[in-house]
Amino acid sequence: MRVPDHLGVIPDGNRRWAIDKGMTKEKGYDSGLNPGLEVFKLCEGLGIKELTFYGFTADNTKRPKIQRLAFTKACIDAVELLAKENADLLVIGNTNSNMFPKELIPYTGTRRRFGDGGVKVNFLVNYDWKWDIGNIISEEGDIKTPINLLKSKDISRVDLIIRWGGRRRLSGFLPLQAVYSDFYIIEDYWPDFRREHFNEAINWYDKQDITLGG
Amino acid sequence: MRVPDHLGVIPDGNRRWAIDKGMTKEKGYDSGLNPGLEVFKLCEGLGIKELTFYGFTADNTKRPKIQRLAFTKACIDAVELLAKENADLLVIGNTNSNMFPKELIPYTGTRRRFGDGGVKVNFLVNYDWKWDIGNIISEEGDIKTPINLLKSKDISRVDLIIRWGGRRRLSGFLPLQAVYSDFYIIEDYWPDFRREHFNEAINWYDKQDITLGG
Repeated sequence: MRVPDHLGVIPDGNRRWAIDKGMTKEKGYDSGLNPGLEVFKLCEGLGIKELTFYGFTADNTKRPKIQRLAFTKACIDAVELLAKENADLLVIGNTNSNMFPKELIPYTGTRRRFGDGGVKVNFLVNYDWKWDIGNIISEEGDIKTPINLLKSKDISRVDLIIRWGGRRRLSGFLPLQAVYSDFYIIEDYWPDFRREHFNEAINWYDKQDITLGG
Repeated sequence: MRVPDHLGVIPDGNRRWAIDKGMTKEKGYDSGLNPGLEVFKLCEGLGIKELTFYGFTADNTKRPKIQRLAFTKACIDAVELLAKENADLLVIGNTNSNMFPKELIPYTGTRRRFGDGGVKVNFLVNYDWKWDIGNIISEEGDIKTPINLLKSKDISRVDLIIRWGGRRRLSGFLPLQAVYSDFYIIEDYWPDFRREHFNEAINWYDKQDITLGG
């Protein structure tokens, strides 16, 4: 079986899940923690080398404050949970912003080994695709800042992206690492994660003809 | 009904279609011409403002020469067919390469009006996402050339991308214009295009909650 070297996870649908359960939207994020840990362990078991979670984006921080605080806390908790595993962790996002949680600063800059190390886990926090590529296009179509390097240069090409919550879009997820990625959409919301979702995506990927654009 | 302002079309599956018909792979491209014209007319009818066809990429030109000649000819023919319609045409791709057909040079650089004008039609020919973004990342992860502007700056954000042929990937299609695009996959091969494919994608798009990352 050919497993992806690098799996991207877009854990969407937390708010819709909360509403369906009769809760307010911000109550949905906490229930995304266990799914994240479970996906990590499944990747570990399969020998997947790299795993990137789409935490939250700069776009997301424009939502009501109560939601912003809830998804920020969930990301902090998720990174701290993963730091108890055997993993090589890196948090990537715009740290020059109040929206970046100070608790996660120690995880930025250089990948850190936890436990015996293992899966490279990237966690996108206050991520912004325009920030990532250095704002090469402004709304006016001209250059705002010079480009140096891709800010996410430590994240490699993504082979398979699994998105929960039924939407069929990238929503700004690592546009340059995703150019050749295969997309697999799970209709269920992320808090309703089941191991079968992961397995069906992995089995589907095994059957794809990977050409990298050729 | 909310229709996309800008529709992207990835007309895949020509070679698999030809094999299924007992033909050699390169025989599949010619049968993609009518579908292209039909999609154009459907867009015209619905008031879609911009339409981008994924013609061929620099990656594709590494295929056997007989295939390369066939898909290049199909792209020339497609552009010349569209130039008989009421459309504002622009061909975008790396013209500094022998792989770019000289017949299409007159369509590059500035958008040209044909007939009374109408739908903005972009045709990607010898397109290369790395060329488009100015090679900001080389294989070694460092800068190869300075960035000026996105070479496809005259192509706007894509709302909906329809891909024929069952594959669920972008294959390097306009990575920065596609960051918020919705993807709709048609299992049938492009030469088996039916108007219902288009309609089901448009109807599906109408039901999506468009947030542009928010």
